[in-house]
Formats: sequence, structure tokens, C-alpha cells
Amino acid sequence: MLRIDPKEVSVGKMHGYLLGAVAPRPIAFASTIDKEGNVNLSPFSFFNCFSANPPILVFSPARRGRDNTTKHTYENVLEVKEVVINIVNYDMVEQMSLASTEYGKGVNEFEKAGLTPVASEIVGPPRVGEAPAAFECKVIEVKPLGNEGGAGNLVICEVLLAHIKDEILDENQVIDPFKLDAVARMGGNWYCRAQGESIFEIPKPLTTLGMGVDQIPERIRYSKVLTGNNLGRLGNTEVLPTDDEVKAYAINEEVGKILTGSSDVEGDLHRLAQQHLENGDVKTAWKILLQDY
Amino acid sequence: MLRIDPKEVSVGKMHGYLLGAVAPRPIAFASTIDKEGNVNLSPFSFFNCFSANPPILVFSPARRGRDNTTKHTYENVLEVKEVVINIVNYDMVEQMSLASTEYGKGVNEFEKAGLTPVASEIVGPPRVGEAPAAFECKVIEVKPLGNEGGAGNLVICEVLLAHIKDEILDENQVIDPFKLDAVARMGGNWYCRAQGESIFEIPKPLTTLGMGVDQIPERIRYSKVLTGNNLGRLGNTEVLPTDDEVKAYAINEEVGKILTGSSDVEGDLHRLAQQHLENGDVKTAWKILLQDY
Repeated sequence: MLRIDPKEVSVGKMHGYLLGAVAPRPIAFASTIDKEGNVNLSPFSFFNCFSANPPILVFSPARRGRDNTTKHTYENVLEVKEVVINIVNYDMVEQMSLASTEYGKGVNEFEKAGLTPVASEIVGPPRVGEAPAAFECKVIEVKPLGNEGGAGNLVICEVLLAHIKDEILDENQVIDPFKLDAVARMGGNWYCRAQGESIFEIPKPLTTLGMGVDQIPERIRYSKVLTGNNLGRLGNTEVLPTDDEVKAYAINEEVGKILTGSSDVEGDLHRLAQQHLENGDVKTAWKILLQDY
Repeated sequence: MLRIDPKEVSVGKMHGYLLGAVAPRPIAFASTIDKEGNVNLSPFSFFNCFSANPPILVFSPARRGRDNTTKHTYENVLEVKEVVINIVNYDMVEQMSLASTEYGKGVNEFEKAGLTPVASEIVGPPRVGEAPAAFECKVIEVKPLGNEGGAGNLVICEVLLAHIKDEILDENQVIDPFKLDAVARMGGNWYCRAQGESIFEIPKPLTTLGMGVDQIPERIRYSKVLTGNNLGRLGNTEVLPTDDEVKAYAINEEVGKILTGSSDVEGDLHRLAQQHLENGDVKTAWKILLQDY
């Protein structure tokens, strides 16, 4: 275990560990204007949603580590308390990266990145036409977290109006994560694309109170086959199958073969149950695991 | 374009759009204690890093949308201003999900989820032994963002001590995103696993000031072949190859074939350049795109 006391390492090094560990981070592609109306567009990965009611997004344009200067986005939100937070998908990630170039004051990154400014309805800064979603926001507070280089500044934004592209919605008007094709930041120069097999589902344990891993019978809990994820899924069970259901399942062909012919009954039952768990069939997995042998 | 005014939709619906669009979100698996020392462990995806100096992590245990009650984690950080924020990898994601079950006050989710509590060095709450990284923090402020159901509460945490597992470090002691195998939240029941081909690299445009997409010659910029990502990468070029370099590249076999025999010289040159761009060889792409024809 590497043990890091922030007071004993450089800001750059601490920054690296934080960005490496807290990942993937969503990206706020923030469009702002200064009091003369000059537009700025820049990405920030110190960003997330923090409240639904009121709807609040927070991002942080930090003070630069190398010279403690501030970014145009930070200066702009102090001058004009408005921002459009655009969401970034894979098709625009290189243009977004280019917009993070430190161009001089007054340079419009929509132009440098070749992205399309679309007039907002409520706020001054334009939104990014290519973005799959965009949030017109008022800045309700800017909260500095320090005053040295590397210090963050929470820009707390209330969403006034959201724009969502029809292409990323499913038939119920819900955002489809596969259609969104979002990108997020990781440490160093690394990004993550949420796509294909990297997207997976876990049923929410909300209404049922799962029995918990601590209530799983010991010979299952201390299995040499089952993983922590397998146990987590089993622990999210409220009611076990009845003895009759378990007995009835002994006539299943695969179970029968294991019970009568295997040289490692427990191991083989656990492997068979594991297959069902990985297919999401928790009840059948339990019927197999609870067999008598 | 779907247009959503937060004042005109239910909190649940707004919540759904925010969670669907702001994704993937990193997960704070937060370990806290109440003033009697009862341990709680619960995941939160309204979470990110917001500052390196001081090192600040922020997460939000929101007021429940359905009945405006608060979570044990929120109550605990008001009683004992300490938290360990554990990072979640794929191997523990089902146990983490189980820990999000709304067990009664005083139930220890380390036990229910079958995770290992390890004593912290500085703060009271234990850390998760299985977590690839853990941050012992003091809570420097709890900032409510509203007081209705669905309102977030910013829990602003200063990192006092970081623990990073050796297994996720590369030979330079830097966190390797592939070894981290992080998971993050998306909308609905969806998660994202940062792994394999979903992790990709974009060189940082920091020291060089890229010319910008607006400075790319028009016949390239308005190409029918090149994508926004291709243009973004080309725009992140400071100095183009010289005329002599471009001329010298005309003897390249593939380029020669296109220039002398193609019925779609521009299209074929752009497709060839695109292959080099996708392999990260921007200079060769430019030499192809700037050929005279």
C-alpha cells in the first residue's frame, strides 16, 4: 500500500494521484462570456451533478498549479454569472481537447475547435450545437477552495433550461447510455468512452432489503469459486427459494450429473451457480447452491 | 431537440435527465460514523475531486426525492466530521451496490456487503480493505443546496491521507487506468467500466498553441471524409510540414498511386490521411492532405 500525506508531496504529485484515482470523471464543456460579450469555451473534469431539486451542476476551474494564475472561464463567471454546460460525446472529443488549449484572452474557442455556436434561450453564452445535451445555467455562487496554485473554485450552477438531442433518447424519452456515447476523463492523457461492453447494468437494491452477505450460509460465503461480485448479488436477495423448490431442482440434468458423478460436488455446483448469476438468474443460482450433498 | 424547463417537470424526471446526461460519474464509497461510533458505508455518484491544493473531494448525500428524509451518511458527517472516501473497482461493484440498500440506522454495511473494515490512521471511520484507493478526510463544510426532496448537500472534504494499492501503480508509481479497473455510474441502473478499448489517450494540447480548426485550409476543413475528431487533431498542430517535406512525400507509393490513378484523388488522399490520424501520426497526415493535385 502506497501511503501519501498531502503535506509531504508536491501539489503536482497529489494532483496526479487524485486524477488517477477519482475516475472516470464527467466533462463540463463550459461556454461563458466576459462583460464585453467575448465567448470562451473550455472543458473541465472537476464536474458533476449535485442536486436534482433545485437542479445543480458544479464545476471547478482551478487556479493553475504552475503559476497560480486563473482561467478565463473563472474570470468570466465572476463578470457574467451565466454558463452553458455542454456534454461531450465521443464524436467531438478531439475538438473538445483542442478547446482546452490556452489561447489568449478574447480568442473564441468555438472557432478554434470548429464547433457550432447556437444562441441560448435564456443566458448570454451560446451552446455547442454538436453536444448531445446542454444545460443553460445561472451561476448562483463561486466558492474558492484555497488561494494557492492548484486551488479549486466551486462554480455552483442552477440549471434554467436543458436541451437534449432526440438521437440520444429511447422510445420512452429517457437518455440511452449507448446512444449518448459519453466520454470522461481519467488520469494523465487518458479518457474513457462509455460504450458497448463497458456499459453494464446492476438491478437497484431499493425496495427489497437484501439479506446481506453476512446472512449467506458459510459454505457458500467462503466458497473458493464465488467472487465478491457473486456474493454481492446473492446478498441482494430478500427471500430464498423454499426447501421444496430446492429439492425439485435436483432433477435438473446438470445438477443431477454433479450430485451423482462429480469428484468435486461443491466446486462444480458453485461453478454452475456462478453461470446463472452472471446471466442475472439469481433464483436458479440459489436453488443450485442450496442443494444437499 | 427535447427542451426541458425544470419548473415544468417533476423532480424525478429532472433527476433522470441529469443522471442520464452527466455521466459516467465516479463513485465515492463513503465510510462514516455517528457519535456512538456506529459505522455506515454507502456509495454516492454525486462526487468528484475539485481541488489539488488543498486536496478537496466533494460528494452529495441528497435529500430523498420521495419523502424528503436524509441519509445516514448525511447525519453522520454532521455528528462526526470525518469520512473515508473509498474508490470502487469492478471486482467489488456488486458489493457496493448491495451497500446502497437502505438498511436501518446502526446496521453496518461493511457486514451486509461482506467487505473488510481496516482501521484508518487519522480518522474514526474505517476504510474498505478491498478498495484500490482510499482517502481519509476531514469534513470542512456541509453545504445544503436546498431543503426540499431531491436537494443535494455538498460535503466538502479535505484529504488528510491517501492509500493507494501497489497493484494499480505502474513502474513510475503512477496510477495505471487499466489496472485501476474503475466503475462509474450512469443513468438508470447503468454502470460504466473503464477497461480495455474503452480507455483511450489524447495528447494534451498544453505547451504548443494549436493552429485551430479555423486555420485549416478550406478544402481540408470541409472534407467529406474527415470527421470532427480528425479536424480536432489536425487543428492541434503548431507548425505544418514545409513545402519541401510535402513534395518529398509525393514519392510515397500509396500517395503516388492516388495522384496518378485515382478517380477521386481528394477523397482517397483524405481517407489515407485519416488512417494516419487514427494511428496518431499527424505529421504524415498533413503531408498527404497538403499534396498538390
